[in-house]
Amino acid sequence: MDNLFSLGNATFENYVGITSGYTEMAYQMSAHVLTVGFAIMLAALLYFVLTMKTVAPKYRISSVLSVVVMVSAFLLLMIQQQNWTNAFVFDAESGRYFLGSETDQFNNGYRYLNWLIDVPMLLFQILFVVSLTKSTFSSVRNQFWFSGTLMILTGYVGQFYEVTNPTLFFIWGAISTVFFIHILIVMKKVITEGQQGVPEKAKRYIGMIWTIFLFSWMLYPGAYLMPYLFSLGLEPALSEAAVVGRHITYTVADVTSKVIYGILLTLTAQEMSKADGYDYESLSTTS
Amino acid sequence: MDNLFSLGNATFENYVGITSGYTEMAYQMSAHVLTVGFAIMLAALLYFVLTMKTVAPKYRISSVLSVVVMVSAFLLLMIQQQNWTNAFVFDAESGRYFLGSETDQFNNGYRYLNWLIDVPMLLFQILFVVSLTKSTFSSVRNQFWFSGTLMILTGYVGQFYEVTNPTLFFIWGAISTVFFIHILIVMKKVITEGQQGVPEKAKRYIGMIWTIFLFSWMLYPGAYLMPYLFSLGLEPALSEAAVVGRHITYTVADVTSKVIYGILLTLTAQEMSKADGYDYESLSTTS
Repeated sequence: MDNLFSLGNATFENYVGITSGYTEMAYQMSAHVLTVGFAIMLAALLYFVLTMKTVAPKYRISSVLSVVVMVSAFLLLMIQQQNWTNAFVFDAESGRYFLGSETDQFNNGYRYLNWLIDVPMLLFQILFVVSLTKSTFSSVRNQFWFSGTLMILTGYVGQFYEVTNPTLFFIWGAISTVFFIHILIVMKKVITEGQQGVPEKAKRYIGMIWTIFLFSWMLYPGAYLMPYLFSLGLEPALSEAAVVGRHITYTVADVTSKVIYGILLTLTAQEMSKADGYDYESLSTTS
Repeated sequence: MDNLFSLGNATFENYVGITSGYTEMAYQMSAHVLTVGFAIMLAALLYFVLTMKTVAPKYRISSVLSVVVMVSAFLLLMIQQQNWTNAFVFDAESGRYFLGSETDQFNNGYRYLNWLIDVPMLLFQILFVVSLTKSTFSSVRNQFWFSGTLMILTGYVGQFYEVTNPTLFFIWGAISTVFFIHILIVMKKVITEGQQGVPEKAKRYIGMIWTIFLFSWMLYPGAYLMPYLFSLGLEPALSEAAVVGRHITYTVADVTSKVIYGILLTLTAQEMSKADGYDYESLSTTS
């Protein structure tokens, strides 16, 4: 068991920070992208709180779950950003940022533990907006939770090995992918059933949800593999472009899979509320 | 690709901080202006939340979008301010502030990534208050988002070169300006159509929105070019007055284009709500 922890600088971000260091532009772009990520989460949190009453009461739990996701993403991504800016120290001589000698190392693990909260919530959330016609609520929910949790935990273990042990890195990544594929299959079923017998506009939104779900969730394995996608070999690339690319990919994926997904669920719920006879825009009271 | 990042101290704020350093007055004025900027955003956030119900439900999404803008501007401008105060270190011998040897360099990029959220939202926002008579909602929205995003991203890349490579700085700035001009043209169309068939008072407010929009958005290219406006040459000015001037310009522009703009949209929506038969002031319930 001790072996599990006997790892040196476990991420390729740290290796780049030791070997070549980061230029001003690469270091700052990373800091900016990480910052805009958590700022969007807090901004969207307010959006979900303030638009909650635009949908009928039975759909509001979807907004609540978006709020839960936003809080955890905001906090963990903020700490991830601080982890970045604390880990590297400017060296005036070379004009580059190097890994500090006594600072915490950079590690993407904050993201993973954020997803441990968010992934089950995001998958759960859609079940309060769309209606299942054949599957049962509890069976789908349990499958989502089971595979969602195991996908994250196995990926979390795997990412510790991305530099020190590529074999273990790929094995854990492959196990994680099995759960990921299971989630995609179940989600496709939910989408197909959910599109039946709903207003035309709601049906279109549900179709968009599937598109952005597929797009954004596929970015995560891409970001996981980033050091190897840039090297196209069995050694991780020690390229600062790959580091910046990974920050950008994770941020785009997080914003799409959490914020845009949540907004589309709100829009879907608004259409279904109207069809149910609840029309927020023509309410004459101030409530 | 790696070449893209091989830049030294990328901003003229850092160059001034290396060469002449900052007097107490210039350093502190910058810190104060940056601070009042993010304080105004948090204050205005509360204004937009608390006045949301003064407009009819269909206009409230404009207030929600103002809140989204306030949150992201508050967070990113606060971090921008911390970036300023952390980057420079007081030197007791000379009584001036110099760029720290191991601190993060100062970079305006936080602002840019804040605008990446705010610009699409601010442009989108007006479409929920004014009615388009000839243009279609989705076409205008897409044009706003397309040009808004590209204007910011190209400006963001450009600002990294303001000292190290003036040619690239001007080229990226010029590309950004093309998108800016497109936005102005589309916005003028929205304003003209929006003034048709609305109550006299609302029409006046919409006219004021155009004036402050034009004024405040024109300040941004001015701030971008500040080091060259002060030198009136092909070398950036290493003047602390230009640094302070840029902080002031950005702050005035941010407050006008986000806060005053949002307040005028709220006032417009109040007038249109009254015309629609929703009069908050004469509501007799307490809700």
